[in-house]
Amino acid sequence: MKLDTAGTGAGLPAEGDLKKAAAAWEKLMGGGGMTGWLELPRRMKDSEADISAAAAEIMDSSRALVVIGIGGSYLGARAAAEALDAQGAELIYVGKDMSPRTYRDAARQLEDKDFSVAVISKSGTTVESAIALRVFRQLLDKKYGPSAGKRIYAVTDPEKGALRRMARENGWKSFPIPPDVGGRYSVLSAVGLLPMAAAGIDIHSVLDGARDAMEEYSDGNPENPVWQYAAVRNALYSAGKKTELFSAYEPSLGYFLEWLKQLFGESEGKEGKGIFPASAVFTTDLHSMGQYIQQGERNLMQTVIYAEDVLCDMEIPYDEEDADGLNYLTGKKLSWVRRKAFEGTLQAHVAGGVPVNVIEVPELCGEELGRLFCFFQLACGLSGHMLGVDPFNQPGVEEYKSRMFSLLGRPGYV
Amino acid sequence: MKLDTAGTGAGLPAEGDLKKAAAAWEKLMGGGGMTGWLELPRRMKDSEADISAAAAEIMDSSRALVVIGIGGSYLGARAAAEALDAQGAELIYVGKDMSPRTYRDAARQLEDKDFSVAVISKSGTTVESAIALRVFRQLLDKKYGPSAGKRIYAVTDPEKGALRRMARENGWKSFPIPPDVGGRYSVLSAVGLLPMAAAGIDIHSVLDGARDAMEEYSDGNPENPVWQYAAVRNALYSAGKKTELFSAYEPSLGYFLEWLKQLFGESEGKEGKGIFPASAVFTTDLHSMGQYIQQGERNLMQTVIYAEDVLCDMEIPYDEEDADGLNYLTGKKLSWVRRKAFEGTLQAHVAGGVPVNVIEVPELCGEELGRLFCFFQLACGLSGHMLGVDPFNQPGVEEYKSRMFSLLGRPGYV
Repeated sequence: MKLDTAGTGAGLPAEGDLKKAAAAWEKLMGGGGMTGWLELPRRMKDSEADISAAAAEIMDSSRALVVIGIGGSYLGARAAAEALDAQGAELIYVGKDMSPRTYRDAARQLEDKDFSVAVISKSGTTVESAIALRVFRQLLDKKYGPSAGKRIYAVTDPEKGALRRMARENGWKSFPIPPDVGGRYSVLSAVGLLPMAAAGIDIHSVLDGARDAMEEYSDGNPENPVWQYAAVRNALYSAGKKTELFSAYEPSLGYFLEWLKQLFGESEGKEGKGIFPASAVFTTDLHSMGQYIQQGERNLMQTVIYAEDVLCDMEIPYDEEDADGLNYLTGKKLSWVRRKAFEGTLQAHVAGGVPVNVIEVPELCGEELGRLFCFFQLACGLSGHMLGVDPFNQPGVEEYKSRMFSLLGRPGYV
Repeated sequence: MKLDTAGTGAGLPAEGDLKKAAAAWEKLMGGGGMTGWLELPRRMKDSEADISAAAAEIMDSSRALVVIGIGGSYLGARAAAEALDAQGAELIYVGKDMSPRTYRDAARQLEDKDFSVAVISKSGTTVESAIALRVFRQLLDKKYGPSAGKRIYAVTDPEKGALRRMARENGWKSFPIPPDVGGRYSVLSAVGLLPMAAAGIDIHSVLDGARDAMEEYSDGNPENPVWQYAAVRNALYSAGKKTELFSAYEPSLGYFLEWLKQLFGESEGKEGKGIFPASAVFTTDLHSMGQYIQQGERNLMQTVIYAEDVLCDMEIPYDEEDADGLNYLTGKKLSWVRRKAFEGTLQAHVAGGVPVNVIEVPELCGEELGRLFCFFQLACGLSGHMLGVDPFNQPGVEEYKSRMFSLLGRPGYV
């Protein structure tokens, strides 16, 4: 991947911003606390084989894997499965909402299908996923009787918590979530890797890309793209660009953008500060959000992930009538047309006063995705420290939970 | 539906704001220009039967309907089909992006299925949809030979443009897009109604709800919820709330939120002004965007559409072990739990300094959806006039198009 801010209106970072980045980098690399993710790509070397074996077992016994998880417990896996067009076990996501329709639809999809369940939760008491586990344990029991437990895979704290206890008592296969890794930084632990592998993704290449990236971006110097990106976006924020529109030109990157929104929003949005993360999938959203981006409030910056996709392509067909006037494109590849749309849009948005950070990915594959995960995690940790907040806590999420628990009548909250 | 701003931190509109609303209302109701949508629910009475007949024909001949359209030419239909859980012909959306994967996936989905095509475009020269029409005409020709044209339904300008010409020359069935109705206000014309009806939605009830709403909200007085909402959000914008987070608690309302983003973003985002429209589906996104909403920059307002869903529900199962501590919810309906999550979140966000407009919908059905479409269109037109912009143009969308055409080498643009 390649970062470009210079030619895109975002500009090169100023010296003062890079100095701030240097100080923040020290803090980030100091490690400790919830920075175990810095080590994950290397640490996971020892667990790769176990995860791959469990995934092979799942693919062998099941056509679908029900993934129970919410927030950081499913976004990374879903981002990867959709971006890489996984063709292994079908992933069915539940426990990510409180919609009865989600349950109905999942049950319908599973009707004539063998399936397994991966339940992903540090504690095991998150309401959404706990309800889902109850429901899908019943479905498993009904379908597989005494052997149902063999189809449950728990990804949870290595020692503590309700889900760990359940896994132990019921003899479920389990994988640890390292205690020094927070949910939104956990995609390269079993949290992300187990569903990815079951979906048929080569996790070795994802981890390889991640290890490469951690190596490449470990340099404490201003040329480091992580520094450049963090410095530029912080400078833009100081200059009044309060919203960052993460964009891609491939719909299957939509969940990668969702992953980015959690990563940055939860890491930076505190103490009345932080860039608001929004997302758009182009060219689709040029036909809905394009007008605003071009001419609305000038408090926007944009970060485009432009990935060349090698999976498939097609040619624009010839039409004898040419009523639509499109024959000048005959024989051109659709990917080429898309690239021109990207380039034209980039020019237009910059001209309209929206600075754009461009991250180009030469090929949408496991290795590049591993790199992207690491690049953005590093940039986010660095950005948070530059902003002067703790990028690894989330003190605000308790507020709605305690009010909800009180309304639900949960013991201890009434 | 019922609007509540008073108890939710958004407050009652001030007298000055309502005066501004009164002046803007005059302008809006003056009609002319692109305000044909004000009349659409009544006008469509005459076309309902034709659209329903075409839809019946589609459902009879086809298991899937390929919907070719982008922006306002597909968002409304998709919003309705997903919200109302349509069970007629399967809608497959193409021409809404430039992704080769979209074409590959659509072709796979159609492999062993009879299908028809609805192509929706005022001009017929929008690049995305024009390419899609070329591709799916070829597929139709290959599958159905000389009778392929009987499976194409064009929704386009009644007189002018490439698609009208093609429809005429090839004898395709066609429906008009009224020239005085813009794309983002066209959901209640054949643009939205034809795919809806083919998907099995009772469009009569949608139009009934719409007619009711147009009647109910036609009153020029401060009690009108349209005035209240427009006045409150404009006052909040003036007070620095630059971003409006449209939210729902049901994932199948996700495309309704996308429809809202186009409606408001394209209507208001111009001349350096306008509220930036973002969206979130809860409770899912409380686990990603919740932290930011609770404690980030205080430039947010929120508008929640809370819809009771009567389609399906379920009870929280009992678990003897109760390791997750969830037995206090045993036997409770999931919809009840969701409602408590909504109420707790509302309290939390208001306490955190985010004003929330609440729109409650007693039942997610065609009639209520028709009402919602009209409520928001009226509120958007009114809001735009209060802001001092033309809510019915979109001068900024040409910028990227002309640059793209130049890069593509389109004759006349090089």
